[in-house]
Amino acid sequence: MKLFNCDYNEGAHPKVMELMNETNMQQHVGYGEDDICAEARELIKAACNRENIDVHFVVGGTQANLMVISHALRAHHAVLSAATGHINVHETGAVEATGHKIIALDGGAAGKINWRQVEEACRLHAEDAAFEHIAKPKMVYISFPTENGALYSKQELTDLRRVCDEWGLILFADGARLGYGLTARGNDVTLSDMCDLCDVFYIGGTKVGALMGEAIVISNDDLKEDFRYIIKQRGGMLAKGRLLGVQFKALFTDNLYFDIAKRANSLAYKIADACKDAGLKLLAESPTNQQFPIMRNDVIEKLAEKYIYSPWVIIDEKHTCIRFCTSWATEETDVDELINDIKLANTSVAADFKEIMIDAKE
Amino acid sequence: MKLFNCDYNEGAHPKVMELMNETNMQQHVGYGEDDICAEARELIKAACNRENIDVHFVVGGTQANLMVISHALRAHHAVLSAATGHINVHETGAVEATGHKIIALDGGAAGKINWRQVEEACRLHAEDAAFEHIAKPKMVYISFPTENGALYSKQELTDLRRVCDEWGLILFADGARLGYGLTARGNDVTLSDMCDLCDVFYIGGTKVGALMGEAIVISNDDLKEDFRYIIKQRGGMLAKGRLLGVQFKALFTDNLYFDIAKRANSLAYKIADACKDAGLKLLAESPTNQQFPIMRNDVIEKLAEKYIYSPWVIIDEKHTCIRFCTSWATEETDVDELINDIKLANTSVAADFKEIMIDAKE
Amino acid sequence: MKLFNCDYNEGAHPKVMELMNETNMQQHVGYGEDDICAEARELIKAACNRENIDVHFVVGGTQANLMVISHALRAHHAVLSAATGHINVHETGAVEATGHKIIALDGGAAGKINWRQVEEACRLHAEDAAFEHIAKPKMVYISFPTENGALYSKQELTDLRRVCDEWGLILFADGARLGYGLTARGNDVTLSDMCDLCDVFYIGGTKVGALMGEAIVISNDDLKEDFRYIIKQRGGMLAKGRLLGVQFKALFTDNLYFDIAKRANSLAYKIADACKDAGLKLLAESPTNQQFPIMRNDVIEKLAEKYIYSPWVIIDEKHTCIRFCTSWATEETDVDELINDIKLANTSVAADFKEIMIDAKE
Amino acid sequence: MKLFNCDYNEGAHPKVMELMNETNMQQHVGYGEDDICAEARELIKAACNRENIDVHFVVGGTQANLMVISHALRAHHAVLSAATGHINVHETGAVEATGHKIIALDGGAAGKINWRQVEEACRLHAEDAAFEHIAKPKMVYISFPTENGALYSKQELTDLRRVCDEWGLILFADGARLGYGLTARGNDVTLSDMCDLCDVFYIGGTKVGALMGEAIVISNDDLKEDFRYIIKQRGGMLAKGRLLGVQFKALFTDNLYFDIAKRANSLAYKIADACKDAGLKLLAESPTNQQFPIMRNDVIEKLAEKYIYSPWVIIDEKHTCIRFCTSWATEETDVDELINDIKLANTSVAADFKEIMIDAKE
Repeated sequence: MKLFNCDYNEGAHPKVMELMNETNMQQHVGYGEDDICAEARELIKAACNRENIDVHFVVGGTQANLMVISHALRAHHAVLSAATGHINVHETGAVEATGHKIIALDGGAAGKINWRQVEEACRLHAEDAAFEHIAKPKMVYISFPTENGALYSKQELTDLRRVCDEWGLILFADGARLGYGLTARGNDVTLSDMCDLCDVFYIGGTKVGALMGEAIVISNDDLKEDFRYIIKQRGGMLAKGRLLGVQFKALFTDNLYFDIAKRANSLAYKIADACKDAGLKLLAESPTNQQFPIMRNDVIEKLAEKYIYSPWVIIDEKHTCIRFCTSWATEETDVDELINDIKLANTSVAADFKEIMIDAKE
Repeated sequence: MKLFNCDYNEGAHPKVMELMNETNMQQHVGYGEDDICAEARELIKAACNRENIDVHFVVGGTQANLMVISHALRAHHAVLSAATGHINVHETGAVEATGHKIIALDGGAAGKINWRQVEEACRLHAEDAAFEHIAKPKMVYISFPTENGALYSKQELTDLRRVCDEWGLILFADGARLGYGLTARGNDVTLSDMCDLCDVFYIGGTKVGALMGEAIVISNDDLKEDFRYIIKQRGGMLAKGRLLGVQFKALFTDNLYFDIAKRANSLAYKIADACKDAGLKLLAESPTNQQFPIMRNDVIEKLAEKYIYSPWVIIDEKHTCIRFCTSWATEETDVDELINDIKLANTSVAADFKEIMIDAKE
Repeated sequence: MKLFNCDYNEGAHPKVMELMNETNMQQHVGYGEDDICAEARELIKAACNRENIDVHFVVGGTQANLMVISHALRAHHAVLSAATGHINVHETGAVEATGHKIIALDGGAAGKINWRQVEEACRLHAEDAAFEHIAKPKMVYISFPTENGALYSKQELTDLRRVCDEWGLILFADGARLGYGLTARGNDVTLSDMCDLCDVFYIGGTKVGALMGEAIVISNDDLKEDFRYIIKQRGGMLAKGRLLGVQFKALFTDNLYFDIAKRANSLAYKIADACKDAGLKLLAESPTNQQFPIMRNDVIEKLAEKYIYSPWVIIDEKHTCIRFCTSWATEETDVDELINDIKLANTSVAADFKEIMIDAKE
Repeated sequence: MKLFNCDYNEGAHPKVMELMNETNMQQHVGYGEDDICAEARELIKAACNRENIDVHFVVGGTQANLMVISHALRAHHAVLSAATGHINVHETGAVEATGHKIIALDGGAAGKINWRQVEEACRLHAEDAAFEHIAKPKMVYISFPTENGALYSKQELTDLRRVCDEWGLILFADGARLGYGLTARGNDVTLSDMCDLCDVFYIGGTKVGALMGEAIVISNDDLKEDFRYIIKQRGGMLAKGRLLGVQFKALFTDNLYFDIAKRANSLAYKIADACKDAGLKLLAESPTNQQFPIMRNDVIEKLAEKYIYSPWVIIDEKHTCIRFCTSWATEETDVDELINDIKLANTSVAADFKEIMIDAKE
């Protein structure tokens, strides 16, 4: 079986493993205060073209989300998120477990929210006679790219920044797949822009070549104080913190992080193009390493004999949206084989799909 | 100004105050373990026609909600609620502050959810490949009557009970206005039914004649243990617990609770009828003490010269849904005056309202 | 039976009930935004001789404690308290339930902590190599008077204030029995001093003449924002908020609050003096309405035939420390009778008590 | 510099790295549901000689602690722990952040608690008239070995088990250094005993040869349900869950876990013996890989020129207790050099230490 269901089926990129092996017997102090972590932080600062940011390494995305949110918000604060936002649907209520309400906004098929929605949520809250009876919007959570593979343009981020400033909100970007986003076709956002436009975001390692690990970047000075306490309190401070430093050092040496992301994207485009050629609709346009074609269930069953995919959304009785992912480890020959099988399986049935309408807001 | 904005504008019903005064100088032990609380509990058990229930008095509705929910649920459990449910919109994230996610279901204009929605939520969760990544539905929260004045029939509650049993869910009814519901036109649910069909519910005092206070009734044996610890932990255990006992004793003597609720309902019907006669639409059909007419904004402004109402939902640029409430303290002469003013104000404009369509499910 | 076990055995002072009755049928807006609450707030500001304070009414002490603490602290902050502090021993983990650790300091029999202990706790934390692995001290919680009836002098409070300023800590005083403290023999602290020296404190009503209610006074500007959200979230915002305003209006009219506290103190002194005359030791010197004599168990049993007391601390197999309280409602004749019975019961045994040594620091 | 400050200065044992490398390019499903995790679970079950246990892999010890505790306890439950317990002093209030109070018992210098203390805590709670005002003891947390290197005998664990059964408490053992404990000189407890005597415990990997990872073993059926939800909610579910399986597979193949722990212990004994020979006192007798000699500060300063140690407890102005750790990675030649330096440094001053008295309960 070929696994296309996610971007974390293998271990780490060989260069990451190489540095893990090389440094394994070195003695380092614990908890991320070692030299390798320091080096990795410098490499990230250089990639961001910024000195005045704080960089913290934590093990995973749910951890990063719950830490940042519980760190930044006071008890009565809520976080605005697309309804499809990872924190709202796939973290077992991790954010609520830290005491905070998520206010879900309709992000459409792309899973994106825009400044008008944020402004409206803030305005409605402020104008409500019972405003003190309603959790106060204080943070905007976005994913870059979104859970459905879509991106925010620099203009869209700038607009969100502006409305956040107007209403005193924190802008937080979940970058579990940041590498795929920054290297995507048509993307006009840079790491440096992320620092300028977000108060805090993270650079995902787990899904972009590392064994595990996310690098949280805090650019808003007000959020910098005492963050390491939160990492420890939430169980995210590795005794052997150097492990995360090693991996990010490898990833941010010689542009590796971006090169492997870009390659994965280009393989994903081949899959997307093949789907479109076969007459399939996609849930949303994705310029990143995840693709979400909508297929007839019998076709999916046939593909399932050779490939593992992720079921995504039930469209109707006969059709399902599924997810194919690529990663640094994806073999081009496997992609070509998949493409060919999609073509064969769907040629005869392409006509059926013309009727499927997805309300794909953008 | 005449206040019709809510059912808690005055103090307590004179009979409640009478017993408060009468017992004021009596010495009693604290924390609800006194004789008057015991008497009040017996009166409630008699009214419920049940012996094997636990009755606890707490100060308010938000308290009751957060106590019951944090008592009954484990860390990863979520509560299903209508999107308009009080816990979801008007408690400043109190439930999330205890660590639990609220899964909002579309309750339409009536604010009611049905067994099919509950079953679907449970089934979708159970069938999801990533079910462990999603907070687990474990409780159904309903309001009786709902925040928009609507009621569940005995059949509807029985259906909810059945689906809760099938999926292992707890059924919890917020009865902040229970008296108005049980005495409403067309209602076929009794206090005894509430005990049979819900695992836990409460009998609202604050909005039905008391100064403050809700009587939580636990009929599910599994939920009885240690509830008083939770009352204390959440700050709901009055040192002078007898105050709540006194009030519920007064309310459950000589049917007072039900008599005053019924009278308030009948005054509310007069308002509803007057609105309909004036050609106004109501947000949802309400057989209880809250009425939600939709009016033209200029008409509302005119009424606002004499009456205080609650703004409820903005319908469009020109129309707003507002709330009028009645209570034990409402004077019939004030209602008649209001009715007359509605009639005068709206006669000339009734035609306009024909176009307003509210998607009032159920 | 005569109840001396606590100061909340009766309802409210007659003047409080009088105003409750008088205002009962008035119509007021809800949630503490009514005119009576406004008047009560002004009366309290006048009594504090301060304009720039925020005053909020909540129902009870545990509520006040958990609200203030969860409002003021961020996730990794801890609160320093005497081991005997109410939050540490008698609130069912209410503070921990909002996520915060209590660091207990030895307050001795008086239940008082001093600036040296606070400084040491802060210094040890700051100097610890693993300081980020330890919850950060951020608040000092004291009770005035303490749970064992003792008081802080103005100098002691000033010292605590200084060390709090040096280390960036918040000073919070639980004033559940503030009235008894401020009117105590030898006390040199005023309400105005409390505003100057504490960041936040509360004026207890429940135990000083009200049915229920505490008035939280916030003098630190940084803690003022959004406190009403917290009151609502924690279930402490009464729909009929006016009830609390009415009671504090009555208590702060014509010095009632202080007069009744002072009278209760003087009755308590009679009990204390009688105990000392009978050769009994007291757990700690208490200049307030609670007295804690240590008695032989057989003597206690004898007194228990006529009086209800609170068991306090088991001293050894034969002796127990018990609590007698007085309040606005205590009859002087009952006190005289109790005194006489103590005298009779203990005369013959006074010699025994000479050996009992209580390590009463301070 | 030679690092003796902790047992997590290096990466992983070479055999662990070998299997990491070998399996790196294999494709596996995520979240610990892969074949390697399944194999590792079987190896652990075999080592425990038990089939009916649940085994879960999480990243670190603080995580394991907060997950188990928040999973097992209801809102009003407290956990009993030695005052020196890791959860009480070095986890930044992680347990309180999940809402639970820790009740600290005096564990003496060894950091151990006994059944009498547990029984007394339960009895005092049950007998207190205000028991509902006090968080309810529901779990006993012990560390095996303790933070100060001491062990519980099988009899001591059996006694704790008995008192837990009598009072309905859960017995939870933090096994961050379990390997060192089970292979210690004089230990009579087996992995199988741990399953019999504890409701839940974990097998520490981070400090015993792994890069990171703890294997939580649940033997009490009542605690098994839904634990994976909690792992996810608290941010402990690795996308590449196989990483933890790989490491525990390597550690539980050919007795590696125990062999490396035993070797580290024997090196630690050499250090302990050298200290004793030099006339030094130890904080507590430790048969495991951590040793806690008390030294004169000037001696410590001299050693600090060549060695890194952990400061542990300030004994008095002139003396400090410090920690030396050994691990799988410790070179015997380094130990010999350290021993020699201790001997040289302390010979002349041994006499001084005779006066130092540590109140080491045991």
